[in-house]
Order: sequence, then structure tokens, then C-alpha cells
Amino acid sequence: MSKEEFTHLTEKGVHMVEVGDKNHQRRKAIATGKINLQEKTIAMIENEEIKKGNVLTTAQIAAIQGVKNTSSMIPLCHPLNLTGIEVDFEVKSTEIICTVSVNSLGQTGVEMEAITGVSLGLLTIWDMVKAVEKDSDGQYPDTSITDICVIKKEKI
Amino acid sequence: MSKEEFTHLTEKGVHMVEVGDKNHQRRKAIATGKINLQEKTIAMIENEEIKKGNVLTTAQIAAIQGVKNTSSMIPLCHPLNLTGIEVDFEVKSTEIICTVSVNSLGQTGVEMEAITGVSLGLLTIWDMVKAVEKDSDGQYPDTSITDICVIKKEKI
Amino acid sequence: MSKEEFTHLTEKGVHMVEVGDKNHQRRKAIATGKINLQEKTIAMIENEEIKKGNVLTTAQIAAIQGVKNTSSMIPLCHPLNLTGIEVDFEVKSTEIICTVSVNSLGQTGVEMEAITGVSLGLLTIWDMVKAVEKDSDGQYPDTSITDICVIKKEKI
Amino acid sequence: MSKEEFTHLTEKGVHMVEVGDKNHQRRKAIATGKINLQEKTIAMIENEEIKKGNVLTTAQIAAIQGVKNTSSMIPLCHPLNLTGIEVDFEVKSTEIICTVSVNSLGQTGVEMEAITGVSLGLLTIWDMVKAVEKDSDGQYPDTSITDICVIKKEKI
Amino acid sequence: MSKEEFTHLTEKGVHMVEVGDKNHQRRKAIATGKINLQEKTIAMIENEEIKKGNVLTTAQIAAIQGVKNTSSMIPLCHPLNLTGIEVDFEVKSTEIICTVSVNSLGQTGVEMEAITGVSLGLLTIWDMVKAVEKDSDGQYPDTSITDICVIKKEKI
Amino acid sequence: MSKEEFTHLTEKGVHMVEVGDKNHQRRKAIATGKINLQEKTIAMIENEEIKKGNVLTTAQIAAIQGVKNTSSMIPLCHPLNLTGIEVDFEVKSTEIICTVSVNSLGQTGVEMEAITGVSLGLLTIWDMVKAVEKDSDGQYPDTSITDICVIKKEKI
Repeated sequence: MSKEEFTHLTEKGVHMVEVGDKNHQRRKAIATGKINLQEKTIAMIENEEIKKGNVLTTAQIAAIQGVKNTSSMIPLCHPLNLTGIEVDFEVKSTEIICTVSVNSLGQTGVEMEAITGVSLGLLTIWDMVKAVEKDSDGQYPDTSITDICVIKKEKI
Repeated sequence: MSKEEFTHLTEKGVHMVEVGDKNHQRRKAIATGKINLQEKTIAMIENEEIKKGNVLTTAQIAAIQGVKNTSSMIPLCHPLNLTGIEVDFEVKSTEIICTVSVNSLGQTGVEMEAITGVSLGLLTIWDMVKAVEKDSDGQYPDTSITDICVIKKEKI
Repeated sequence: MSKEEFTHLTEKGVHMVEVGDKNHQRRKAIATGKINLQEKTIAMIENEEIKKGNVLTTAQIAAIQGVKNTSSMIPLCHPLNLTGIEVDFEVKSTEIICTVSVNSLGQTGVEMEAITGVSLGLLTIWDMVKAVEKDSDGQYPDTSITDICVIKKEKI
Repeated sequence: MSKEEFTHLTEKGVHMVEVGDKNHQRRKAIATGKINLQEKTIAMIENEEIKKGNVLTTAQIAAIQGVKNTSSMIPLCHPLNLTGIEVDFEVKSTEIICTVSVNSLGQTGVEMEAITGVSLGLLTIWDMVKAVEKDSDGQYPDTSITDICVIKKEKI
Repeated sequence: MSKEEFTHLTEKGVHMVEVGDKNHQRRKAIATGKINLQEKTIAMIENEEIKKGNVLTTAQIAAIQGVKNTSSMIPLCHPLNLTGIEVDFEVKSTEIICTVSVNSLGQTGVEMEAITGVSLGLLTIWDMVKAVEKDSDGQYPDTSITDICVIKKEKI
Repeated sequence: MSKEEFTHLTEKGVHMVEVGDKNHQRRKAIATGKINLQEKTIAMIENEEIKKGNVLTTAQIAAIQGVKNTSSMIPLCHPLNLTGIEVDFEVKSTEIICTVSVNSLGQTGVEMEAITGVSLGLLTIWDMVKAVEKDSDGQYPDTSITDICVIKKEKI
């Protein structure tokens, strides 16, 4: 096998890869993603400042808890010492963009934590607005979560 | 307020909406989404049948556990009686499509469970292949999770 | 032993008491409690409407998650089917009162869920304001959580 | 494939098997297992009635919590409505036997819950006595957990 | 904004504050609180030494688990490296006082862990004695949890 | 009390023992155990290579998650910084042997994590094959988990 290999896989299955020899240092990752919503849903959010706060604060908390719980959700992730988590939302006319920044002190990168936080933040927005996004048949023709990616991963 | 409203919001914040009067019945939801990967990553997965099994089985389990834990991850979701969960992956040349079907017996729909399962399945694939997807700077220019949506929600 | 006994205790220790013969019906419990804070802290909360929303929404979510997770925190509680959860806060000059109402459909009362929700809501308020409540030595001479009690428990 | 098949496996991996058509009824399972300990360790437990209570109560609670959390630990288990859990320990000269009885109301058997409870009860006893069981090199030549089996599984 | 501010709040909501620059050192916090019970309930506990052990051991374990799980219950708390936890109960004629001491090695104080442990210890005592504390209408006129406060927080 | 004592017990119950003075260093523990199965069950596993992968991969993941979650399952265990986890299965004619190796960087040994991982791996195999192991009365006369022990515990 070349140097490029699936490090989580072994001859006999999967493992949590040993990181005891990696540098113990400060690390950062930033990820983003967005949820597409109907224009009327966004307008309803924008027209009610406090309730908007409630929608986005709920999603922020879900994102932060998602970051903290990543190692119990993603089977082969290491438990980590996280030092800080920022979650921001940018509300546009038909979408809300979520950006999550995670800092840690430890031996592995935190990009999985960042994209997990983005995912849970966007899933929670969906949950908060689902009564408005549903059509008369109870379906969601206009709602989707998309473009979840890692913007930057670095040692700091 | 019109009939269209954010049911999770109250005058004073958020709540877990009362569903005690809704029908206790069998319900189903199907959701999908995909992860974009490099062609070489997909080829490496395809070339090693057993390891492919290991990548996808790990992701299936994460998806199933995600479905079961949705109410602890999405703050205002109800705990539910789930009766069955199916997770399928379709491997294409530069993407893997994840489809999750959730059945329940209870008083609320299970679309949040289905999209949460899809999200965790795709996040876990990312984790499994990250050593190959990373470029020489440790970044992920080609990797993204997209098009998470609800295909169908119904009472059965 | 008289009819009054500790039902969670057995001759040989503790158990999760059998409720399979109890009525499967709708049940409700309401609990309350309060956190004593400095006047300046309350004023700071009141002066910033949006941030107040953020403090209280965060505490509402912690209370709701606490209600949902009661059976994993209180060792001998049964896992329950919860149908609805309401969390309200009343902000007074030197205290914030938290009231939690829990509805369920099942075979056991939900008063433990209600007081657990109140406790976690109040603990979270403490966490949110701790930077202001701390004195110059890092101590909390003015902060306390008091008067957590069950207001009402009923079958509905 | 014959009628005897691995129901958790599909053509494409694993699933949480659909039980929506199975009878919703009361079910029971009883499981047992034992931990082998040094005679001196058992004597120390027996000589201190209260501390014995503490060792065994701690193990009972771990067993009960293990039963309640089985579906989050065993990937393809269904979340269940448990109605009662009993955990008993029998202390013999060089072993402690753990028996767990689980009752539920639902659509699947509870034998996995019972053996998971037994396992966690015995693991916790090990943890409680490890300072005494360890030899001078910090190894456990005399300690083992054995004979975990299902005594009975039935519909009630 | 003055130096006194709510550090968990940002312009756009909430965050888990960055502590990567704080000293990594040993820290301690001690908290206390009490539950008011009927005299007959306390007498019943006192009259049965072993069962008293079971009530209080169960509450100790809930307190210890509460301390360990604080970061998953209180949304903006950091996950911490805890080095030791002590939980004591003092049984008086109409109340039980719970004191929790938490030691850690890390970058944030542990007072939230200590008061969360106290709260869960007291909630669990309530659960253990609820059959005796309830009046003939199933209400709790005499039961309350009160005076939860931080006794001391320090670097060690 | 002699130097040999139950370190988790105090005069008044249980505690999470203080380890703040112990060496912060790399540690390893290896544990093993086995599940006895019918010959036909093993043959069915061996005859289907991919499905065998699925049975064992599912069990590996449960073992890894069990190792990571040990401190929430075993009441007095410390939360730990784990650096690597290996889970291997050896399939024999009527049994499957599970071996778990855990590495950590911290102040306590990881033997509890290793035996907890072994237990959850074996419990999950039982769950995966239960449809075949059950006899016509739904009982498990041939299935048992046995010989769970610590092979080696060391500082590295």
C-alpha cells in the first residue's frame, strides 16, 4: 500500500489510531456549511428579532454540544481537550450560513469537530423552522443542507 | 400570528412542543445526502472490498446511532420509539450517496432522525478517508458534504 | 415494614421498581426554584434585551435537555415517553425564578424530570453570569440556588 | 439463505431490524455471570458490612444504568420501554455471582439488556476491588469475569 | 462594555470561551446544598443503617457522575481533566446536607462541576425517599432543595 | 486497615480517588475474553467473508466506543486522555476471542477501559448472531461470554 492509506483501517478492521507520539500543541479548525430555506421563512426570522435570537441561539448551543460530543458520535475520533468554540450564523435571503471555529490543545486535528458542529447547527435550524418549511403535504421541497466543508486547519 | 409559525418558539423562548394529542401511529421518513470525494479515494475504496465494507459499516453504525440519539443532539426533538432503521450507501465515481430510512411508532414525525442519520453517516465517511483526502498542507480542497434533504415523510 | 417504605430499596440494595402494572396514561408535573443574584447582574441582564434572550434561551435548552436525560442522571428513574416540556423564567430584582412543566404518557410520574429540569436551568444561569457574580477573589458570596420544589403533580 | 440467518445483516451491511409488526407486550429476561476474586478480597468485603453495601450498591447502580443504556452501547439494539430492573449479588468464597432481571413493555426481547447489565455490574466490582486484587507488579493473575449467560427469556 | 461582562455572550449569541492561554494548573472547588425532608423520613433512614448506606451511596454516585458529565449538561462548560471527587452527606433531624469537593488539572475553574454534583446528589436523595415524602394526594408539601452555593474555589 | 484496602471506599461511602499527584505518563493495558458460540454459527460467519467483516467491524466499533465511554459506565473511573485503541478478534471453531489494547497519556491505569472494551465487543457479537444462536424456544443454551481478564498493564 502506498503512503496514502486509510489510517483508520487495519488488516482486520478498524482502530482508533495511536497518536501518543504526535505533538501536544494548540490546534485550530474552521468549517462552514449552509441550509437553504424559503424566502418567507427567512423573512419571518428577520421580522422577529428576539425569536431570531432564539432560533440561532438554540442552533449555536446544538453546534457547541456537537463539537464537544464528536468523539461519541464519530466512532474512531479521539476524545479531545477543547479550549474554545465559536459558532456564527450569517442570514441571507434564502439561506443561513453556519461557521464553526474550534481550538484545542492536544495531539490530533479538530476538523472533524468543526464539521460536526456545523452539521448539528444546521440540523437544529431545520428543526426550528420545520413547521414553516413543510408544504401542505408535510414534505420539504425547498429545504436542504449543503456545502459543508473545512475552510482551514492549522497548528497555532 | 398566522397559522404558519415557528412551533418551537414561545413568547418567552423555546419549548418542546406538546404532542400528547397527536395520533399514536406508525410513521416513516427517508432522507438522503452525499459526500464529494476525490476519484482516487473512491478507487481506493472500490479496490479493497473488505476495507470498503469496513468504511461503510462504520458509517452505517454511526448513522444508526445518530438516528437513535437525535433527541439528545437536537435540543427540541422528542425522544421517540424507533422500530427500524435502514442505511444505504451508493458509491459513484466521485461521491458516495447516503440514504437513511427511519420507522417509528409514536406521535411525531421522524424526518429529523433521518437527516441526522444521513449527516452522521457522511461525517463518518469523511473521518474514515481523511488521511487520503487531505492535501500536502493538511487541507481538504475536494471534500464536501452536500444535498442533505428529506425525500419522503409519511404515516404508514 | 409499614406501607410507607423506600420503594427504591430492597433487602439487598437498590432496584428500578417494576411499574408494568401501573396505568399507562397522561401525566403532568410542575416544579419551580430560583437563583439569587446580585442586583447589578440582573440589571445587566435587563439592559440588554437580546443578550437576556441568550442567557435565558441557553438555560431553557439546558432545562429541556435535563428533563429528557433525567433517567441517565438519576440512577433509579425510568426512561419515559415525554410529550411536552415548558420552561419559564421570571426575572425579579435580585433573583430569577425558573418553572418547568413536563407532560408524559406512561406508567410513572414525572416530578423528578421537572425538578431536574429546574436544577439544570438554574445551574446554567449561574454558568452564564459567573463572570459578573464572582467577587475580586473569585468567590460567589451572593449567588445561591434555593427553593426547588414540586408545585403540582397530577394525572391528566 | 435459510430461515436461520443473521437478522442484523443485510446485503449491504447492517441495519436496526424493523420490529413494528411484532407484538407490543410485556417481556422478561434474566441473565447471570460471575467474577472470580481472591479469597482475601472476599473476606475483606464480608468483614465490613457497610463497605460491602457500598461495593455492591455501586455495582447495582452500574448494572441498572447499563441496562437502561444498552441501546447506546450495543449498536443495533432498539431503544426500549423498560418497566423494572432487579440486580442481585451472591457472595461466595472466591467469587461473586451477579443476576439481572429486566422487564419491558414493547416489541423486542430484553436479553441483551440483561447480559449488558450483568457485564457492567461485574466490571464495576472489579473496579471497586482492584487495589486489593492487583499483585505487587500491578497485574491481576487471579481476577476474571466468566460464565455470562441468559438464564431465561420469556413473554409475560 | 465594562470589564464586568458576561463572558459566555458574544455580539451574535453564545460561545465556549477560549481558555487556551490560561494557566494549566491544579484547581479545586467545594460546594454545598441541602434537601429538607420530613422528620419521619430522616428517622426511617437513620433506623436502617444498611439502607441508609444505600440511599446515600446511590446519591454519591449520582453526584460523582454529575460532576464528570457537567460539560454535557451545562451547554457552555468546557470538558475537563478531573483528578478527584469527594461527596459527603451530613444527616440532620429534618435535612441532609451535601458537600462536593472537585479537584482538576487544567485551564478552568471547577465550581460549576461542584454545584452540579451537589444538585444531582440532592435530586437523587429526593428520588430515593419520594414514596415516603409524598402526602396522600401524591404531593410534596415538605420537600425542597435549597441553599446550593460555592463554599470555596481555589488554585492548589 | 492494612495497606491493602479498597481505595474507592471511604468512611462514608465512595469517592473518585484523587490522582493529581500521580505521574502523568504514557500507559498501556491489554485485556482479553471470549464468547462461546455454536459450531454452525461460526461456520455461517466464516462462509460469508463480507458479512463476517460486518459482524466483527460492528463489534470492534462497540468495543472502541466502550473504551472511550468507560468513565460514564463505571461510576468511579476517571475520564482519561486515550491515545490509541486496538481491537482484534480471533475466530475459532466454537468461540471468538476478543483482545483489546488501550494506550493513554495520564495519571491512571487503563485496565478498566480494556476489560470494558472486551465486554462490549463480545456483547455486540452476541447481539449480531442471536437469531442463529437462539433455540426453538428462544433460549441460548450454547452461548456464553467467559474468561475476561487483564493480560498486561504497564507504563510505556
